[in-house]
Amino acid sequence: MKIYDVEGFPNPLRVRMALAEKDASDKVTFIAVDVMKKEHRSDAFLAMNPLASVPVLALDDGTYIAECSAIIEYIDHTFEGISLTGTTAKERAIISMMQRRAELMVLDAVATYFHHATDGLGPELEIDQNKAWGNKQGEKALAGFKYFNTILSNQAYVAGEAFTVADITLFAGLGFADFAKIAVPNEYTHLLNWRAKVAQRPSVK
Amino acid sequence: MKIYDVEGFPNPLRVRMALAEKDASDKVTFIAVDVMKKEHRSDAFLAMNPLASVPVLALDDGTYIAECSAIIEYIDHTFEGISLTGTTAKERAIISMMQRRAELMVLDAVATYFHHATDGLGPELEIDQNKAWGNKQGEKALAGFKYFNTILSNQAYVAGEAFTVADITLFAGLGFADFAKIAVPNEYTHLLNWRAKVAQRPSVK
Repeated sequence: MKIYDVEGFPNPLRVRMALAEKDASDKVTFIAVDVMKKEHRSDAFLAMNPLASVPVLALDDGTYIAECSAIIEYIDHTFEGISLTGTTAKERAIISMMQRRAELMVLDAVATYFHHATDGLGPELEIDQNKAWGNKQGEKALAGFKYFNTILSNQAYVAGEAFTVADITLFAGLGFADFAKIAVPNEYTHLLNWRAKVAQRPSVK
Repeated sequence: MKIYDVEGFPNPLRVRMALAEKDASDKVTFIAVDVMKKEHRSDAFLAMNPLASVPVLALDDGTYIAECSAIIEYIDHTFEGISLTGTTAKERAIISMMQRRAELMVLDAVATYFHHATDGLGPELEIDQNKAWGNKQGEKALAGFKYFNTILSNQAYVAGEAFTVADITLFAGLGFADFAKIAVPNEYTHLLNWRAKVAQRPSVK
């Protein structure tokens, strides 16, 4: 089992956190993709993932799995340990919804801001920017911080009282927000306290 | 169990197809949301779903589930019948990935084109359009048609040899494309034949 990714990038972090939560990081060989040299846009990479995004999971039978939510679904059902995606129908639905909200409202919004409203990865890679759309997504990320601060004022984790994939997505989203220089306002204490708590998990430290 | 939605809209169609595939349409009370009167942006609706989108599933215990992928996760694990989201780790991962690609490459791309590059739902509702971004997403949808035409030249359904939630998402995406007047090119015969086959399913007819 191999993972093609870039260490330190937000989406690769999601999968690496999930593997660490399942104590399975040593079950995978990581292969570095040189995004700055546009390796993710090469024919060889596009054959693995037509959307040109990292990470990609390569199974031993030659199957390629892209999209973090799908890769983590595989990890969660393959390795022992805590459940990241839930077991009952209701748990699975709530975790899936909150994971998607963490993508839509924070991680994907920050990513679009970064790639469209800032220099992003530089002029060689950011070839078709839309600053108005990027700035709009930056505002959306701020609204997302507010939403999750309210959610976390009522419960310990993003999808309820247990740590799940939804926490991983939001945590990666806040890391990306730091990098893109979108600050979480100091008054969002529930969100900031949750973040400090997650940062202490063995999968992050 | 109640579903707040708009009959005929693309995302509501996904959940209605999933219910019909599980022979469970009569287990749900449908409540119409008057989107043209902005009911989905009312405080009452935003309390159910802060992202202001339909459909929303209301469970009998007062839990609200939004996001089609999460609602269908609930439906698939609650009712008997064919599996829409898969059973093994590998099946679940492939279906999740292909479902996400059908969203990213077709349904969501078409939706953004419709709301940003056309009159959409009219000037009262489309208050902050970005035509350049909308047009870009329209081009992305055309690339998505090409991708899925290639996929369907090799296999019977979007995620393999069985009908799944990934087919539901792509089918709803093509319906939305019709409405938004993005035509599927005639040479994409694999995609068009797959569409004709899905249209014959009892859940659609």
